[in-house]
Order: sequence, then C-alpha cells, then structure tokens
Amino acid sequence: MSRPIQPVILSGGAGTRLWPLSRAARPKQFLPLAGSRSLFQETLLRVKPGADAPFLPPMVIGAELHAGLMREQARDVRVALAGIICEPCPRNTAAAAAVAAACVAATNPPALALLLPADHHVDDPRAFRAAVAGAAPAAAQLIVAFGIRPDRPHTGFGYIERGVELAPAVYRVAAFREKPAPEVAERYLEGGLHYWNAGILLFDPKVMLDEISQFAPEIVGRAVSAFSKAMVSEDLTILDAREFEACPSDSIDYAVMEKTSRAAVAGPLDVGWSDIGSWAAIPAGAPADRAVAVDARNCTIMSDGPLVGVIGLNDLVVIASGDAVLVAPRDRSEDVKRIVDELKARRRKDLL
Amino acid sequence: MSRPIQPVILSGGAGTRLWPLSRAARPKQFLPLAGSRSLFQETLLRVKPGADAPFLPPMVIGAELHAGLMREQARDVRVALAGIICEPCPRNTAAAAAVAAACVAATNPPALALLLPADHHVDDPRAFRAAVAGAAPAAAQLIVAFGIRPDRPHTGFGYIERGVELAPAVYRVAAFREKPAPEVAERYLEGGLHYWNAGILLFDPKVMLDEISQFAPEIVGRAVSAFSKAMVSEDLTILDAREFEACPSDSIDYAVMEKTSRAAVAGPLDVGWSDIGSWAAIPAGAPADRAVAVDARNCTIMSDGPLVGVIGLNDLVVIASGDAVLVAPRDRSEDVKRIVDELKARRRKDLL
Repeated sequence: MSRPIQPVILSGGAGTRLWPLSRAARPKQFLPLAGSRSLFQETLLRVKPGADAPFLPPMVIGAELHAGLMREQARDVRVALAGIICEPCPRNTAAAAAVAAACVAATNPPALALLLPADHHVDDPRAFRAAVAGAAPAAAQLIVAFGIRPDRPHTGFGYIERGVELAPAVYRVAAFREKPAPEVAERYLEGGLHYWNAGILLFDPKVMLDEISQFAPEIVGRAVSAFSKAMVSEDLTILDAREFEACPSDSIDYAVMEKTSRAAVAGPLDVGWSDIGSWAAIPAGAPADRAVAVDARNCTIMSDGPLVGVIGLNDLVVIASGDAVLVAPRDRSEDVKRIVDELKARRRKDLL
Repeated sequence: MSRPIQPVILSGGAGTRLWPLSRAARPKQFLPLAGSRSLFQETLLRVKPGADAPFLPPMVIGAELHAGLMREQARDVRVALAGIICEPCPRNTAAAAAVAAACVAATNPPALALLLPADHHVDDPRAFRAAVAGAAPAAAQLIVAFGIRPDRPHTGFGYIERGVELAPAVYRVAAFREKPAPEVAERYLEGGLHYWNAGILLFDPKVMLDEISQFAPEIVGRAVSAFSKAMVSEDLTILDAREFEACPSDSIDYAVMEKTSRAAVAGPLDVGWSDIGSWAAIPAGAPADRAVAVDARNCTIMSDGPLVGVIGLNDLVVIASGDAVLVAPRDRSEDVKRIVDELKARRRKDLL
C-alpha cells in the first residue's frame, strides 16, 4: 500500500510584487487572482483528500495574522484543515521545511510530506495529483522537487537540470541553477534538460531532517525546538517565538537542495502552472463599469472603486486598490517591490 | 478723464480637459491650479478696482450652480462682486458678449466693458492692467482684442494677425486665423505679426451691440431679450431661460470679430499669460506625501487621497481625484475630453 501524503501549504509569502492589491493583511495568496477562488483556495482543492492521490487533510504554515482568513477561505471551499502552524516571523523556506518535517514525523510517522506554496495557479489539478502520486516511491529515499516544462526563456525563475532517469518522469538532479541570464535561459529552453523550479517538494520527513541537519544544522536545531516548544491552541500550533526568531533565514534550495546528493526532480509537469509572481502574469483586461480606455492596448486595469480613465497607453498596469494606485509598464512590474520598500522606509504601514 | 471699465468675467467654461480634477460642480476656474488661489480668484484680483486702472467692481457671467462658489471665492480674496449674471444654459461667447454689453449699457452707460475668461493665469497682473488701460482710448471706437506674444508654435490657439498701428501697441486687425497647422504656426512665430488670441475683449457696449446686430442679429435679439426679461434676486441676474435657450450658440470670434471692420488688437502682452487648457500646461511634480515615483521623469502626479505609485514612466499625467483616476501621456492630455464624452454616453453624471 502506498504511503499517505501530508500536504503542508507554505502561506508565509507577502506577495509584495502584487501591491497595492496584495497587502500585509491580505497577501496575494488570499486574493481571487485567477478566477473566483483565491490561490490559497485553489491550492487547498488541489491537495484535498480524494480518490486519485493518498492525501491527508492539508496543514498550513503561515502568519497567525492570517489564521482567520485561512479558516474562512478553507470553509468556503469545504476543505477541512488539519491545522495551522503559525510562524512568529518569516524565516524563509528552510525553516518551514524543517518545521513541516518535524510536524509530520511527530503526527503521522508513515506519511510523506508535500511542501507547496499557497500562491500558485495550476490549470489541471488532476494531472498535478497524478504527478505527485507517481513521485511518491522515489520520495521514500530522496527529496523530490517538481520541475515545470519551460515555455519561454524566463529569467525570473531558478532552474533544475535533470540527470539520469530513476523512474518514469523522475530524475536525479544534476544541478540547481539560479536565475539565468537571458541567453542562458534561451539555451535551457532549447536543450530540454532544464525545468523551472516550482518550489514544490515531496519527501520523507526523516530524510529532510537528516539533510537539513547535515547542511544547515542551526536551522534544524532552532526550527525543531520552535516546534517542540510550540503553544497549541485549538487548530493553531504557534511556534516558539524565541527559538524561531533565532533560526537563520534561508531558502531550502540554498540551504539543502543545491548541496545534497539525495535530490530528485519529478517532471516535467504539464499542468498549466503559473506562479502569478507579478502584475505581468495577470492577463490584460479592464472592468467594463470602472474603466474607460481610449487608444489603449494590452493594459491591465483593476479597480475596487474609482473609475480609471486611460488614454493612449500600451502595455500598462493600472491598479486602484484601497488607498493606493499603481501605474507601471507591464515589463517593470517586478519593480513594484521598490515602491513597497519606499513605503516601508516612510513607515507608511497603512499602505502596506 | 478716462472712462471707467466694467470687467465682466466669463465663467461659463466646463474645463473638461482637466477632468477628473475639474468636475461639473467645480470646474477648473475654481481650482487652485497655479498656486494657492483659484484661477477665478486670480482673475478677480487682476481686475479689481485699484489705482492703476479705472476698473469698476467686477461682474461675473456663468452658471447659477456655481454662484455659491463665486461668492465664497470672491469673499476669500476680498473682492466685492458687482453681481452675477446666470446663464440658464451654455451659449458660448457671442451670447455672453451681447448680454455683457446690454448689462453695462444699462447699468453704467459711460463705462467700457472688459470681457475676460475666468480660467487664465497671468504672472504679471500689473502689466495686464496697464495694457488694458492703454487700450481704452482705442476701445471708444473699436472692439479691442488682446494678443499674446507666442513663445512656441502652438497649434491649439487661434491667432490674430496685426495690421497698421493705430496707437502705441494697438493695431488694426488684419485677420483672425484659426488654429494653424504646425508649419503655419512656425511661420507665425518667426514672422512676429501674429499673436495668440487670448479671448479678452475691451469695447464700448454700444459698439459691440451694433456689431453683433449687424453680423449675428438673432444672437443679439435673443440675448438682449434674455437680459431684459431676467429675474433679479439679490446679487443674481438670472437670464430668461426661454430666450437664452433660443439664442444661437457661437463664439464671438466667429460671429463678429472675423467679420467686423471695427476690430483692433492690443499687444503683444508680455504678462506671463497661460490658459492652463489641459494637463500638459500643469508643471511636472508630485505631492511628496501622496506619491512614490521610481524611475519616473517629467510626470505630473496629483492626488486628493490615495497614494500614487509610478514606476518607469516618463511624461505622464496621473490624477487621482474623487472617485476617478486619469492616466495619460502629457501630449495626449487634450484627449481627456474623449473620456468625459464616453462617461456622458454612459450617463455617469456622478463622474462628470
């Protein structure tokens, strides 16, 4: 019989590149960016228990501030949460992976853990589940990353270079490659051996704890202590603040995946994946009742209230949300972070 | 002794090219666009009674809807209004000139009338008054237009071509020229014989009534009747709606000035004149507390509330005012009218 899989949804991201729609109190994973459901809800439905993959009810790791939103949004899509692990501060994905591994090892020893971001969109959840189930045997020994087949030479993602095939659609990892230069990304696209790193991992908790112990012992020490000393209250597991704050902040890719020999990559996934990382990923369009566009092409206009009038502009993003308006060319939308940073410097918490 | 001059301020403009700041209930002449005072207030101060020109307390022609604003803004700058003539509907400048002439002839027979728009900015009001006083002798016989020395080949203005000199800085009009093509405007600029038509007129009311009678008899008939049948209530003279609505709508330039032989042009005025006709005329700038501009150059950002974040854009106008946001390249700002027209077509009076 196949091992159960415990989904652990990483919901700690701030989504600042989707400011001003994405705010500290309601970051992008909780917004309905790709349909009527939020990305968080899509993620819940993607990994809820069902016939086609042995998933246990999902757990979430994120900020306590958002626990109410998580419960409410889970209830709306009728997915029962196994619990919410609250991070007292953001400490990146290595600490979260350690906490997830410690938690699954403690609560469901036979289960594999599926660590996945809360803010991705997937067109074909069924194919996603099949890929996860197919990678489960390899995950008994190896930490399995999931690779997305690139459809363009994207320079904003990390890439995973596949090595020898271990099983159908599961390869040993030859190398993790950081965000490439355009000409390198072009080569990756042509070669067919490189996949986008989707930041999704399937692993045996003991293997993960072993590997973090080997390559980032301080992270595993602090994160596991934070979990052991956590305060449990109803569905919340509130990590110990002192331990977690003392935990080094690093990504699981840098801390472990680039160093371990026990890494595999499953894929390439053909599931219609998108990380909706910035406004550039939102299709052009405008709300008929809240926009007047004259001689405008390929603009993304959103408004939660004011009428937005645009004249003679192409490839622009105009977002009126709450007490803020963003105007940026589509291809500069990654720089929204610079506005957010400036607002932080001005201590304008009301706008973050 | 020189004849007194009765200023009559034309405040009937809608200022739609400055939407969304300029709205039906508060059009641009009532907005502080060029400093702490509104253009209407600047105009009042420019023509208030004083030692350097024989001005009578100013009268205003405009919409009854704005009478409260006019009184309030006049009070704020301590200018006493002689009265407000209310137009039941907009009928362009020929009708207004006829009404002004009829009114001045009735109330101050010896006075000349100075008809001037409420929405111009002048850097040097003293020089403006001197030019008006200097043109008064010619205005006993002729309708005197005021010409602005062009400093660029503007294609959005009408031009006045000067003829023989009648007195210092007063010429017979050789021709009125409509908005020229760019190469024609360039020639005008080089030649030195063409001035921008500022839409300011100084005249003897009887001469004006004679000339409108000759070239646009229906206008003078209806406009004078509307004035004769007006309802007077405190400081308001409310023109008869039936007569005024029946009055043809035309500009005084088309109806009279281009046809009459009794036209002169005074100037060129070197008074730092600007008509602030569109956003392009507003200097670049952004409110420090309500804008974050990253890699942005020569942008005009205004906001009455929301924070406006702009990235990587040049020569742009972003105006957040009330329940609307405008985004347009500076050189397309004349087309704001197209947004206003679309909102009219959608019957969105709330946004006009």
